[in-house]
Amino acid sequence: MSKEQRITPRTLKGFRDYLPEAMIPRERLIETARRVYRGYGFSPIDTPALEYLEILAGKGGDESDKQLYKFQDHGKRWVGLRFDLTVPLARFAAQHIGELGTPLKRYHIAPVWRGENTQRGRYREFMQCDFDTIGTRGVAADAEIAIVIHDLFRSIGFEDFTIHLNNRMVLTGLLERLDLAGRSVPILRALDKLAKIGPEKVAAEMMAAAATTREQADEVLRLAALDGSDNGQILKQLKPLVEGSETGNEGIARLADILSAAHAAGVPDDRIKLDVAIARGLDYYTGTVYETFLDKLPGIGSVCSGGRYDNLAGLYTSQELPGVGASLGLDRLLAAMEELGMHEKTSTPVDVFIPFFDKGRLDDYVALGAALRRAGIGVEIYPDAKKLGQQLKYADRRGFRLALIAGSNEFESGTVQLKDLSDGSRRDVELGENAEGLIAAVRKTLG
Amino acid sequence: MSKEQRITPRTLKGFRDYLPEAMIPRERLIETARRVYRGYGFSPIDTPALEYLEILAGKGGDESDKQLYKFQDHGKRWVGLRFDLTVPLARFAAQHIGELGTPLKRYHIAPVWRGENTQRGRYREFMQCDFDTIGTRGVAADAEIAIVIHDLFRSIGFEDFTIHLNNRMVLTGLLERLDLAGRSVPILRALDKLAKIGPEKVAAEMMAAAATTREQADEVLRLAALDGSDNGQILKQLKPLVEGSETGNEGIARLADILSAAHAAGVPDDRIKLDVAIARGLDYYTGTVYETFLDKLPGIGSVCSGGRYDNLAGLYTSQELPGVGASLGLDRLLAAMEELGMHEKTSTPVDVFIPFFDKGRLDDYVALGAALRRAGIGVEIYPDAKKLGQQLKYADRRGFRLALIAGSNEFESGTVQLKDLSDGSRRDVELGENAEGLIAAVRKTLG
Repeated sequence: MSKEQRITPRTLKGFRDYLPEAMIPRERLIETARRVYRGYGFSPIDTPALEYLEILAGKGGDESDKQLYKFQDHGKRWVGLRFDLTVPLARFAAQHIGELGTPLKRYHIAPVWRGENTQRGRYREFMQCDFDTIGTRGVAADAEIAIVIHDLFRSIGFEDFTIHLNNRMVLTGLLERLDLAGRSVPILRALDKLAKIGPEKVAAEMMAAAATTREQADEVLRLAALDGSDNGQILKQLKPLVEGSETGNEGIARLADILSAAHAAGVPDDRIKLDVAIARGLDYYTGTVYETFLDKLPGIGSVCSGGRYDNLAGLYTSQELPGVGASLGLDRLLAAMEELGMHEKTSTPVDVFIPFFDKGRLDDYVALGAALRRAGIGVEIYPDAKKLGQQLKYADRRGFRLALIAGSNEFESGTVQLKDLSDGSRRDVELGENAEGLIAAVRKTLG
Repeated sequence: MSKEQRITPRTLKGFRDYLPEAMIPRERLIETARRVYRGYGFSPIDTPALEYLEILAGKGGDESDKQLYKFQDHGKRWVGLRFDLTVPLARFAAQHIGELGTPLKRYHIAPVWRGENTQRGRYREFMQCDFDTIGTRGVAADAEIAIVIHDLFRSIGFEDFTIHLNNRMVLTGLLERLDLAGRSVPILRALDKLAKIGPEKVAAEMMAAAATTREQADEVLRLAALDGSDNGQILKQLKPLVEGSETGNEGIARLADILSAAHAAGVPDDRIKLDVAIARGLDYYTGTVYETFLDKLPGIGSVCSGGRYDNLAGLYTSQELPGVGASLGLDRLLAAMEELGMHEKTSTPVDVFIPFFDKGRLDDYVALGAALRRAGIGVEIYPDAKKLGQQLKYADRRGFRLALIAGSNEFESGTVQLKDLSDGSRRDVELGENAEGLIAAVRKTLG
């Protein structure tokens, strides 16, 4: 092929390849999430990447509609690529809940696509990692979500993180008490700016946009200002703020139940923090709201968020389906783990490398590799009988920890030279029957 | 929402949801493939679902082009959904091989999309599961592919399967000897119909389409007719057929090396069958060709196929990248496993169910679940304190094996009723310190 006919190999703007060094920790993270979700009885499901456009359009607001990848397929049907896993879950639940029954506990780990502005460093294809319990209002399900989040971050290897917990019903209760029940949307919108513009300007906006009095605005701000290291203390202070509101009291009771159950499950009390200032998500969720922050990197925002909703699939079915769930921000978390130095730099999934040293001995190398694999030790054998130095350079670059060097002399005498690639030290090891001597030595060196 | 405004929940024609019962074995299969690939040093990679149309178009022939999902994105770029993982691998290799170096051993497990005719029972979205070694001509890499296929099917749980092995160079050698080197395409096309139309009609087609003599056609058919349970016997019979052709002799030598290495790796000799009648793939592959058949279901065709190619990425780079690999037909294999009764019918990823029996005891249930999970035993706790019978019916429907029933009396006395859901038998078990007594009993019952 001439140079002119060649096509430049490139990915689309906003899309990226995952090279082994990035993909190995990504797969490990997904495997951990899967294992944790499963341990609580969440089952995997999958849905198509492409859906009828009418299923997707108008579900995530104007922004989502604009970002939707949509086109006409071969049958002239208008179709779209899913932009999240929640809309497909709603469609899925409406379609299959009769067969599956409730509660339906599912996880779904799959890519989604959004034609976002890439200038904000966003990608147009990213993995979502959701888990939800559908078909129950029981607070046990809400408590479990918090417990799963804790288990998940501990299993990934985090020590320092905080789950922020709120319940939309508390604010609803306060607004009921203040006779502001119908004005929650503009009030939430103002409250959401608290960190950015401060209480004075938020109060002014509430008065302007929601026609509250100064006193009403101050009461709402009092709620958002409640803080303290002691969740019990906060619960006590909340009570008078929602006095007389059944909704508000239920919200407080549910928060208390979640804290108590999480404690019983072994979650340290300071890992969960009542944070009644969370406004984000309150216009979407109807009960519990979760956000998860890494103590060492609070600036990246919540890495696992979710909440309770009254009716998941109202657009597709008359069956009311309440639920609660959360979504792990996989790519954000991977970036954070890289920044925190939690990834080992490696582009090999195995630790042991066997150079192909003696061209006539392929069967011996293959037999050696097979023996190690049977013992559960992954091994890569170099495919060409190149110079040893060249092969060992390859092994260093890839990040192997151990090389097993053998040529005719070694195979005849039943030994292998074991080279520790971290310090370059070498020693001879007896193969032993079925390579048992070598296997023991490899296990010992790898620790 | 009124009934009129509701949207019918449905998937596109040719697409499907995976419910837990189908997704649990699918995830298990993917996990097995991943573990086996990794054990040989294959690293995971991922590429975008969407690529520039010019990368994809014209790469898989007219049929692929017709089936391509393509459209203009927000920036008016023509883009397409990948229809396989080979074209993205070629683009990926051309783009990154300088950084990654060779050999590059990668696996890629990801969905692909083809707007196929669904009348043939085909799906328009399906998972591919490829592994390849790129950047080497070494026969060690070819042998490893066969060894991996064997390891993969054994690890999935198959006892009876056969890997059919061929090498394109053998036919090339024969055609060289017969002075038919330039006519391989029509000859292969005729040979591919052997099973369907028989040797007489294949000979007639070779004479008509490739202008061979009757004697030449018979020689080619003699090659395809070589059969026998003994691979060594076949190798011997091949030699005279390619006499004088360097290419033919190299093909035979490579087949012999693969058989020998597979034997050394512990692959039983009758698992690999030299099958010089494989014509499918010979127009694409340039060396070794693999097909894998399930002995009990030969009719479904090859469930793992692949081969060696001279130059993967010639469309995108001047660097010559030879390679060898294969692809596991995940969905076809899952259908086969279902037909063979290899799947347990379950829609829960865990075995143990805890009914929520006593409304006031949520913390106790949660603590019990946490203790079991810490011991590595997955547990689902029902989220609502419904009637026990209703909860146990749910547990039966989902396929749990064990229920741990406890109410106030049990918690006070430190016991749990262990119900085996397979036979309905119940017995009381002492919880013991940190639930150790119960954990031991659960482990024993689950076996």
